[in-house]
Amino acid sequence: MPQTKILLDESDIPTHWYNVVADMPNPPTPPLGPDGKPIGPEALTAIFPMALIEQEVSAQRWIPIPEPVREALRMYRPSPLFRAHKLEAALGTPAKIYYKYEGVSPAGSHKVNTAIPQAYYNKQAGIKRLATETGAGQWGSSIALAGQMFGLEVRVFMVRVSYDQKPFRRSMMQTWGGQVFASPSMETNTGRAILAKDPNNQGSLGMAISEAVEEAASRADTNYALGSVLNHVLLHQTIIGQEAQKQFAKVGDYPDMIFAPCGGGSNFGGVAFPFFADKAAGKNVRLVAVEPTSCPSLTKGTYAYDFGDTAGFTPLMKMYTLGHDFMPPGIHAGGLRYHGDSPLVSQLYHEGLIEAVSVAQLATFAAGVQFARTEGIIPAPESNHAISACIDEALRCKESGEAKTLFFNLSGHGHFDMASYDKYFAGELDDFHYPDSAIQASLANLPKVG
Amino acid sequence: MPQTKILLDESDIPTHWYNVVADMPNPPTPPLGPDGKPIGPEALTAIFPMALIEQEVSAQRWIPIPEPVREALRMYRPSPLFRAHKLEAALGTPAKIYYKYEGVSPAGSHKVNTAIPQAYYNKQAGIKRLATETGAGQWGSSIALAGQMFGLEVRVFMVRVSYDQKPFRRSMMQTWGGQVFASPSMETNTGRAILAKDPNNQGSLGMAISEAVEEAASRADTNYALGSVLNHVLLHQTIIGQEAQKQFAKVGDYPDMIFAPCGGGSNFGGVAFPFFADKAAGKNVRLVAVEPTSCPSLTKGTYAYDFGDTAGFTPLMKMYTLGHDFMPPGIHAGGLRYHGDSPLVSQLYHEGLIEAVSVAQLATFAAGVQFARTEGIIPAPESNHAISACIDEALRCKESGEAKTLFFNLSGHGHFDMASYDKYFAGELDDFHYPDSAIQASLANLPKVG
Repeated sequence: MPQTKILLDESDIPTHWYNVVADMPNPPTPPLGPDGKPIGPEALTAIFPMALIEQEVSAQRWIPIPEPVREALRMYRPSPLFRAHKLEAALGTPAKIYYKYEGVSPAGSHKVNTAIPQAYYNKQAGIKRLATETGAGQWGSSIALAGQMFGLEVRVFMVRVSYDQKPFRRSMMQTWGGQVFASPSMETNTGRAILAKDPNNQGSLGMAISEAVEEAASRADTNYALGSVLNHVLLHQTIIGQEAQKQFAKVGDYPDMIFAPCGGGSNFGGVAFPFFADKAAGKNVRLVAVEPTSCPSLTKGTYAYDFGDTAGFTPLMKMYTLGHDFMPPGIHAGGLRYHGDSPLVSQLYHEGLIEAVSVAQLATFAAGVQFARTEGIIPAPESNHAISACIDEALRCKESGEAKTLFFNLSGHGHFDMASYDKYFAGELDDFHYPDSAIQASLANLPKVG
Repeated sequence: MPQTKILLDESDIPTHWYNVVADMPNPPTPPLGPDGKPIGPEALTAIFPMALIEQEVSAQRWIPIPEPVREALRMYRPSPLFRAHKLEAALGTPAKIYYKYEGVSPAGSHKVNTAIPQAYYNKQAGIKRLATETGAGQWGSSIALAGQMFGLEVRVFMVRVSYDQKPFRRSMMQTWGGQVFASPSMETNTGRAILAKDPNNQGSLGMAISEAVEEAASRADTNYALGSVLNHVLLHQTIIGQEAQKQFAKVGDYPDMIFAPCGGGSNFGGVAFPFFADKAAGKNVRLVAVEPTSCPSLTKGTYAYDFGDTAGFTPLMKMYTLGHDFMPPGIHAGGLRYHGDSPLVSQLYHEGLIEAVSVAQLATFAAGVQFARTEGIIPAPESNHAISACIDEALRCKESGEAKTLFFNLSGHGHFDMASYDKYFAGELDDFHYPDSAIQASLANLPKVG
């Protein structure tokens, strides 16, 4: 029987991040200021260190990873690539299924891959503390861990619905020394204003971003850190796809299709972009972003300039968006509850170079349980989206008899999501089928540009 | 900088289990029946398959691991050996610290190592379901996973204090298809009798064992599975120590001292016994079992014949015991709340061939937090016992200037124990300093033998 786990040595941790901008047919759209004019890097210096701003706007194909960052990544990388023998057998598919398991990081997801360089560059720049938001808690715990590693104080605004659903994500952040506030909170003007209107507001990623950005912009010792969406964040995640390329080479295989959950885009960008380089060089590989039907920015949103947050503090970014005041339902894949999407992912999708599908909540949990009962690992609800789409394709292969090679990113484990599984087993989850009119209503509030 | 993780190939998963009986200076003491006479293997056939009974009484040094078991172990093995560079630096010790990380198993602890062969042998014997107990939930989730892998129904009696502290361990077992009951339960005569006297009884491992054994003994299609204590369970865990030996050889190092948590003994036996073989062959290595001060069977118990459970259903085993009706406090290392200890570990301790220390609850959590803030991984409360004793030794090395090589078994992660960390941070945990009179009282009820 072929190997179950395809492992690499610590020396195989990539030495450079891959910048997809270098291989895109068109340059990325620039972010715009409140006046509708492109903003320069200097506009971001209040909340980001220069090293990250340079990465944000870089068009250089390969960007070197500093040695202390590679050193820190050795804590859990390279991550394993698994061949899903048992899932394949259960499905009775001729397809081969592989998954990269990012749940091996101490915080349990791929988010640590960017938390580490972000903490490193901020520390280098003399920053004392970081403010950030978190949805599902995967990003918040990752930056709490990375902050601890590099000696930075970390303050996390956690979307209230997740704060209540996942108390132990908070405990985890605190174990690593982080401070956690349910958002909207009384810590910021933004939070206080929202609570004044609606004391029971359940929060959203957009609101929590506003709170963290407000705090970072108002204190010189404090910077902001974001767990997805931005170019430099996706850049840092490309170590996932690069490792996977080496692992496929090791077993002499190559994926026909790659599936990754897509909320802000870092999960998808991380695994798919290095393969996009192959695709740009002529290789035949399909890259599929998988999003929830309840927050379908790529599949039902509009490609337009919008704010990254609810309050409108961020620059305008051109992206697929449901409108910055779109209020996603409290689905259990908290990491995918974002109104917009990465501008890079959005542009590639707009140009027809990548694909997107949406899957409904119940189907994702059914897929997650089938995966747990065959492969053993209990996946995060976000990851269940990729599993669901991959299983669908494997079953199509069964129909057609095609022996495709399928690959998905198992971005994290579900150890802090068991309450969601409980609700699924109790029949208390539903699919949040959205009336298109609700999306049209929030899209009507897009900022006017140009 | 030397490697952080020392990895092995799947082909390095051991092909045989190591049986410490072959290297013990004296034969193991036999289990006794209700009449005080040694019982033969046939007395166990009502609850165990013959293959496991044969392993239980075997004196053969190496016992082959069936290929389907090795195949199933490839899901997560070999487990990594880590060099704790960051912890060493934080302590400022000249000692080198290594740890074997068993939290990589899908259930999050070393318990899967024996759950897999137990499920396999029961399936081979035509058994349809397994009944078992669980304390912290690590064993229960491991056997639920293994039962799912081999197509067995699994029923778990979970000590009520853990059932209430750790609801998500229950969810995890259910995700893998297991059925879970808070023990004492209304499912068995034993449970009903205990609840009739004390409806709020918090349960103990001893009681839960009684319930599971009662169920297994009363149904022909059902066997019993135990997660620790017995010889065959410790045998299955020896793959931990064997892998560690290969990993140390790979980096040209060897431990001076090995630390492992010790409740029922499978954690300690698993990592230490293969090194005991080296010790028996003349190698200088100290093996230290670490137990809680609140349940100190080795350090404050008596070496005597006692029941393995509360109701007295099991054979009498010669072991260090606090008395089978000793009621341990609700400490957060639920896996260490057992009145007795493995007969093999007990005999080696009685003969002065291994060591034991006890550590208090607060010190173990302090050690766990220091570990999480340096090495990243949040440990299970059980594992914190080994970390605490290892850190103490590393600090003694700092005093003395000795560059010892220390090694501990990080038996599991703490993802399902965050409520315990919460209580620790809130100052709500204490050390349960036991009056010796309480131990003397339960020891007064030991069964009379011979």
